[in-house]
Amino acid sequence: MKSLARWSVEEEELVACCGSTKFAKQMTALSPFSHLNHAVEAARDIWFNKIDVCGWLEAFSAHPQIGQSPSSSHGSETSAQWSKGEQSTAMKSATSTTLQELAEWNAQYKLKFGFVFLICASGRSTAEILAELKRRYSNRPVVELEIAAQEQMKITELRLAKLFSAKSSPAAATEY
Amino acid sequence: MKSLARWSVEEEELVACCGSTKFAKQMTALSPFSHLNHAVEAARDIWFNKIDVCGWLEAFSAHPQIGQSPSSSHGSETSAQWSKGEQSTAMKSATSTTLQELAEWNAQYKLKFGFVFLICASGRSTAEILAELKRRYSNRPVVELEIAAQEQMKITELRLAKLFSAKSSPAAATEY
Repeated sequence: MKSLARWSVEEEELVACCGSTKFAKQMTALSPFSHLNHAVEAARDIWFNKIDVCGWLEAFSAHPQIGQSPSSSHGSETSAQWSKGEQSTAMKSATSTTLQELAEWNAQYKLKFGFVFLICASGRSTAEILAELKRRYSNRPVVELEIAAQEQMKITELRLAKLFSAKSSPAAATEY
Repeated sequence: MKSLARWSVEEEELVACCGSTKFAKQMTALSPFSHLNHAVEAARDIWFNKIDVCGWLEAFSAHPQIGQSPSSSHGSETSAQWSKGEQSTAMKSATSTTLQELAEWNAQYKLKFGFVFLICASGRSTAEILAELKRRYSNRPVVELEIAAQEQMKITELRLAKLFSAKSSPAAATEY
């Protein structure tokens, strides 16, 4: 892995990786990072050990529903572009029927758990995402909260890698 | 256990047992209950399987800090009286030093977890409560969330028993 002597990150960039303001502030306080791995390790420690439940819910609320386009109410512009890229496989495999079913299950999920269904969608088809949503729907709310937090961390790691890549090579910044 | 043919409960009475409005509404919908056990089983199922994380946080916020008198901002009058009764052992064993230490740890706990330290205080001394607070403080936020929910359920069960007892024998209603 390519090493950068000092990799500085701004709070705004970190909010695009994970929409918890506490997370972004605590990560910024540890910046600059020497490697992507250094940033990822710090992010895991902060996210799982130091961010309270309200911070987790804040980060979840920065995501659009799977199958829906990100709107201005969901996170930053960078976050919206990344979200679109992460859902590209799902969108290619979607039909109006599967999208309709996904929208209905999303609504049921949100009614039961109080937050949006969160999954690291990169490389997953709509059918896979729908099957996972139905499987996870039977979980207890606190179990589902932790699974959603794990999915958020996978998304955060992918986005930190994109951010790191963009900083290493500015031309890569548009490769979502 | 004494059986009541039909034991009706009002939403307001249930909010005094557990300050989640969703919990109270779902319990009321199942009322009347034939036995206390019937009510406790329903309460456990609703609390652990059907109330989302925001509902848990709502219930936690109805409690005063351990070691502090309940104020009007914390739950109903009945809840406040019960809370006082539950903390009576702790208060008898308290000194100004232990109360001060408890207040400081409570503040630290709330800063880390975002909600008040919750423990079924019945029969516990201040020293025991303080030791438990310090032990639990090192937990990850989501682990602590579930422990707090289990403590809330213990409190709810004790309060349902008091409510049931008061309904069986109105004279017992004042025995907090």
